[in-house]
Amino acid sequence: MIRDDSKAIVQAALKDASPDEAVKRALDKINLTEVDKLIMVAIGKAAWQMAYAANNYLGHRIDDGIVITKYEHSKGDIANIKIYEAGHPVPDENTLKATQEALNLTENLSEKDAVLFLVSGGGSALFEKPLIPLDELKDITNQLLKKGCDITETNTIRKRLSDVKGGKFALKCKPAKVYAIVLSDILGDPLDMIASGPAYPDSSSVQDALNIVKKYDLNLSENVLTLLQKETPKELDNVDSIITGSVRQLCLSAEKTAKALGYKPIILTDCLNCEAREAGSFLSSVAKYYQQSQESLAFILGGETLVHVTGHGKGGRNQELALAAAEVLSTCHNSAIFSVGSDGTDGPTDAAGGYVDNDSLLKLQSQGINPWEILKNNDAYTALKAIDGLIMTGPTGTNVNDLTVLLIKR
Amino acid sequence: MIRDDSKAIVQAALKDASPDEAVKRALDKINLTEVDKLIMVAIGKAAWQMAYAANNYLGHRIDDGIVITKYEHSKGDIANIKIYEAGHPVPDENTLKATQEALNLTENLSEKDAVLFLVSGGGSALFEKPLIPLDELKDITNQLLKKGCDITETNTIRKRLSDVKGGKFALKCKPAKVYAIVLSDILGDPLDMIASGPAYPDSSSVQDALNIVKKYDLNLSENVLTLLQKETPKELDNVDSIITGSVRQLCLSAEKTAKALGYKPIILTDCLNCEAREAGSFLSSVAKYYQQSQESLAFILGGETLVHVTGHGKGGRNQELALAAAEVLSTCHNSAIFSVGSDGTDGPTDAAGGYVDNDSLLKLQSQGINPWEILKNNDAYTALKAIDGLIMTGPTGTNVNDLTVLLIKR
Repeated sequence: MIRDDSKAIVQAALKDASPDEAVKRALDKINLTEVDKLIMVAIGKAAWQMAYAANNYLGHRIDDGIVITKYEHSKGDIANIKIYEAGHPVPDENTLKATQEALNLTENLSEKDAVLFLVSGGGSALFEKPLIPLDELKDITNQLLKKGCDITETNTIRKRLSDVKGGKFALKCKPAKVYAIVLSDILGDPLDMIASGPAYPDSSSVQDALNIVKKYDLNLSENVLTLLQKETPKELDNVDSIITGSVRQLCLSAEKTAKALGYKPIILTDCLNCEAREAGSFLSSVAKYYQQSQESLAFILGGETLVHVTGHGKGGRNQELALAAAEVLSTCHNSAIFSVGSDGTDGPTDAAGGYVDNDSLLKLQSQGINPWEILKNNDAYTALKAIDGLIMTGPTGTNVNDLTVLLIKR
Repeated sequence: MIRDDSKAIVQAALKDASPDEAVKRALDKINLTEVDKLIMVAIGKAAWQMAYAANNYLGHRIDDGIVITKYEHSKGDIANIKIYEAGHPVPDENTLKATQEALNLTENLSEKDAVLFLVSGGGSALFEKPLIPLDELKDITNQLLKKGCDITETNTIRKRLSDVKGGKFALKCKPAKVYAIVLSDILGDPLDMIASGPAYPDSSSVQDALNIVKKYDLNLSENVLTLLQKETPKELDNVDSIITGSVRQLCLSAEKTAKALGYKPIILTDCLNCEAREAGSFLSSVAKYYQQSQESLAFILGGETLVHVTGHGKGGRNQELALAAAEVLSTCHNSAIFSVGSDGTDGPTDAAGGYVDNDSLLKLQSQGINPWEILKNNDAYTALKAIDGLIMTGPTGTNVNDLTVLLIKR
């Protein structure tokens, strides 16, 4: 069954992308023998998992630490470590409280001390000491999300409105050394963008920020416009950064599983970032062309698509991608398209992504559901739920972008 | 040079897709020996070329005939044949005059007579006897184009507002036989949709038409809403139809040329129909992934993308697709993406399509041009013109959708 194959591919890819092994590999590259006091600060949607792995691996080496992750992303206590959950994608009061706690832990360190800084996606919202009122920051974050800014653009704005982003956290840790272990959730692994780069020199310029304001016609106060014109640190001499885990690993894992299941795997990209529904349409036209194929094929894509929200429904980019493929797939046979966020939560939903195959359109229509009408209202969750097309994994503790696969089974 | 390779691929594909050979092959399948009087009616952007080829091949066999094509698409006189040029994509007074002339030629025929009906893309606008005032039809056609309806949807509406579309022309030719030779410009070759199917039973339903009105929130008169509720002919017993030439041929030709130039060709689809700029973005992410490739690659796509017009600039779907790829391509090396309409006119411009490579973004920026700002205004023509990125072929006399290619040269 093609549905079983899709489940096997998703499960294996998410397992291989888990932070545990990734964190251990990175720690092997760091020499902590000369370090006096070791403070751990873990931020992002994978923070708990990364902290848990680091603590297990390093034993009692960590003197003090903090985890700041998204609500319902903590899986319990970790010895010596304070656990905070906070708002994502919009920061809240808990974000500010937890971030201040992290700053308290890392102030007054000596040059013999070190900060183990574990960074994962979502860190932009979860690690924040804003230079403007939180309500105003929420409004700006909402504007950025609704207007379809990509994550690079969003972070270029946010790091200028923050006292910790854009390298400013690492500056505060001085003279202590900062070892940053980074699970990349941004295509191409730009260290200054992941979690808005609290421990990395900022490559974005004031001009970039102003261009984004113009491009999306953002509505900003005079105060914010003034902050956007202050330049960020371009150099940091107390930081070592290690990237571990990324979307490429996700694709390679899918490739391996697909091959084992008898498909010829073809990775098309690991940096997809167009509009979600258009990617679904594009892929469905690939499916249609390859209906003549005599062999089983698996087209594999990694990346992070975008959704321009215009409706009031429930969904996420992976669900929209899948739903948009249903119509053309209905003219194919034994073919499926599925897409899943590696963090297990696609948009503001409890689903990780969506699955459609050649029967999906008929199932939708038999319930009076028109996929294009649903997409107009950004309500893919409702449609996919009605045809058992939601992929449910629960929070995975990792975040290395999305995996999208087209299967053609012969 | 990668630019030279792209030119060679475009030239060869357009040549191979020319209607001359296609028409001859189709005529070989028709037995005209028993036919008394033979009337030729050729409509569409390739009408002149098809008529010219048929007339050459059949010699003096054609007793009378007419060509109805787009302005500047006639290449001169053809013996015994009246040549008309008319409005496209919006019908005008010349359309009505020419169509009436075609109806005059084909009335009062006997069952021993035959109509050779040569059909190509653009026939929907060029062959028309509207059941409503022309100005109202123009307004509706403009609404359909601006709202981004695809050609299938557009034709479902238009054939109900016409006295010749949706099989109605073939009904009028009775009792004469109709031999329809069709150059397909619609993905999947649906004969009732190409040129709105004047000689083919209509598969679209009243419900389909009403769904489109709702989907795009069309502004229509009571009279039009009444006409949309009249069903079209579902059976025709006096027609033989032959499809000749299609987008698949275009892809196969590109595959052949790319291979001869040293690329490994990979056809991804022959039925691409997502938003133009998103297809460009998607393809540029494929380009980026394959930068690691050791061999030269050519990813080939056929189809017809869409543009949702929101600005007032100049451009076409192929130009938008190419321009949208410029940013990511700038991070690649020796890679190009180009897209071309096989009819030689992309949107309302004198260009056939657009070309970008890894140098294009820099060239644009050095002239102060931001590709995303330009795309917001649908002004790709202006941007590509500034960097010598327009593909100019002149009208080709054929219309079998678009060809899009990503080249990675090693």
